[in-house]
Amino acid sequence: MTTEAKICQGPHTGGQGPSSLDELVARVAACGARPRIALAACAEAHALGALLDAMERGIAQPLLVGDMDQTARIAAELGRDISGIAAVHAPDPREAVQCAVDMVRRGEADVLMKGLVNTDVLLRRVLNRATGLPPKGVLSHVAVFELPASGGTTRLAMMTDAAVNIRPNLQRKLEIVHNAVAVARALGIARPRVAMLAATEKVILPAMPATLDAQIVARMAEQGEFGEADVAGPMALDIALSPDAAARKGVDHPVAGCADILVAPDIESGNILYKSLTILARADMASTMAGSSAPLVVTSRGDSERSKFCSIALAGYLALAARS
Amino acid sequence: MTTEAKICQGPHTGGQGPSSLDELVARVAACGARPRIALAACAEAHALGALLDAMERGIAQPLLVGDMDQTARIAAELGRDISGIAAVHAPDPREAVQCAVDMVRRGEADVLMKGLVNTDVLLRRVLNRATGLPPKGVLSHVAVFELPASGGTTRLAMMTDAAVNIRPNLQRKLEIVHNAVAVARALGIARPRVAMLAATEKVILPAMPATLDAQIVARMAEQGEFGEADVAGPMALDIALSPDAAARKGVDHPVAGCADILVAPDIESGNILYKSLTILARADMASTMAGSSAPLVVTSRGDSERSKFCSIALAGYLALAARS
Repeated sequence: MTTEAKICQGPHTGGQGPSSLDELVARVAACGARPRIALAACAEAHALGALLDAMERGIAQPLLVGDMDQTARIAAELGRDISGIAAVHAPDPREAVQCAVDMVRRGEADVLMKGLVNTDVLLRRVLNRATGLPPKGVLSHVAVFELPASGGTTRLAMMTDAAVNIRPNLQRKLEIVHNAVAVARALGIARPRVAMLAATEKVILPAMPATLDAQIVARMAEQGEFGEADVAGPMALDIALSPDAAARKGVDHPVAGCADILVAPDIESGNILYKSLTILARADMASTMAGSSAPLVVTSRGDSERSKFCSIALAGYLALAARS
Repeated sequence: MTTEAKICQGPHTGGQGPSSLDELVARVAACGARPRIALAACAEAHALGALLDAMERGIAQPLLVGDMDQTARIAAELGRDISGIAAVHAPDPREAVQCAVDMVRRGEADVLMKGLVNTDVLLRRVLNRATGLPPKGVLSHVAVFELPASGGTTRLAMMTDAAVNIRPNLQRKLEIVHNAVAVARALGIARPRVAMLAATEKVILPAMPATLDAQIVARMAEQGEFGEADVAGPMALDIALSPDAAARKGVDHPVAGCADILVAPDIESGNILYKSLTILARADMASTMAGSSAPLVVTSRGDSERSKFCSIALAGYLALAARS
């Protein structure tokens, strides 16, 4: 909690949230309170470049943790000057991760970002109950993307989980929805509309257990499990996103045609939806690991430069929203 | 086998296939040999309308089977004249389906199309070993869609299975690939490139059994299981479709970045991919049930008018290709 944060008018969960990734970036920049981002194992050109871009655009204050000799060489190759940036020399990647985690835990950094280290190594340190940034429930991947909205505008929507939870059981699905709802609220969506995706709107047992899970999560939402939220399921993707498809098939539900959050039943369908959005629909994405006690930026080589940049902005936005 | 079919130069599996759905339609029209399409339980406005459109565009010769009193009323409401069209009055939907199946089995019709009858009722009659049009392996859903190709052109690609096989085991997956490869060859793709989709390119056991199935199918392809074909797996969707993503992640395989056939591991991911293509990527689609002894048109209310029309053209194209 800093003095800066209290004057920030940008990420404000009560009012209207950003309607595009550009607007999200602009709001973080307008805050002035630049989120402090600890890059763990920072000797990685893509992550380092994205973080330096974010600094230059006024949305991040980097804290570099890693092999600073190698990092200096990479920065030189990129033609960037890192001489004024706070840095900790920690040549061993595991040490670097723990050091960056410690900085976040002590409140010296707002966001943990992955550099040249395997995701599982990073997450293992994050998940450590004693020395990490452990989630209350589970850690889950949440991607924020732009959807076309009425009148040629855009709106932000979310999908989960493309990367972490392989075949979540009912309890995990509840926690995945909790995580995504929290991100949605931080983005200014006061009453998120959640679609529990399946291949059909009917519960089909025993062949399609995902349909029953979806229905149970929707019922628990009616009983207040997620507070102010509308949850529908089972629901196919077309019904969740297209008002026309919903009308044609006679599905009448607050979520139909206007889902804010798409919850995939397992990692295969989540990953395919994520890749389809990025490759086929050419949607820009920002993604984070939700559920941890601080926002995480876990970019991958497959992400576009813009997605990496937007992911840093998203984490910064979430950090600022958590302070306010 | 008709005399007409022998002079048809359109659907020709040896040479270059159509590169767009429009071209597929044009080739069927250019054949002159209009495929005879038996519409089972024809008193359904959408299916009837699409078939009459196809007739007017010169790509179908309808055979109507169903409640002809109701069908006449619907045609009048649509402002269409069906007086010159061959028709069989069969008011009971099950009887109508069997009658249409019999017409196909006797060689009086080339294609079976679904009207006002549940898909499972239709498929049960089709699958009957004694009186249906049973597949050699399994029946599977194959969707043909347009992908952007280099130089601003398009190419046809396929995805399977969005609708029939719920959680196919390894044997079913082999049969699903066989079916899709047969459709690809009929569309002029001499050496189809098949991506067995998963959430990663690694085999991860026991957590992700789909990755092992994918690898086994790819190995069997190397041993000649599918004849001339390249099969890769496990492979995430971005690597399958984007040469850039494949290069970034260092995946070098004939299929990477240019898959002709996307094989989803289960119905949830298949359905999500299909809906994502139609709703998010706004791709036009033609779809069929493959594996039966005659092409099937099983349109649903969710399909666009154009998709219904293109599905009739696809079935006609496959029927003509089977004759030649």
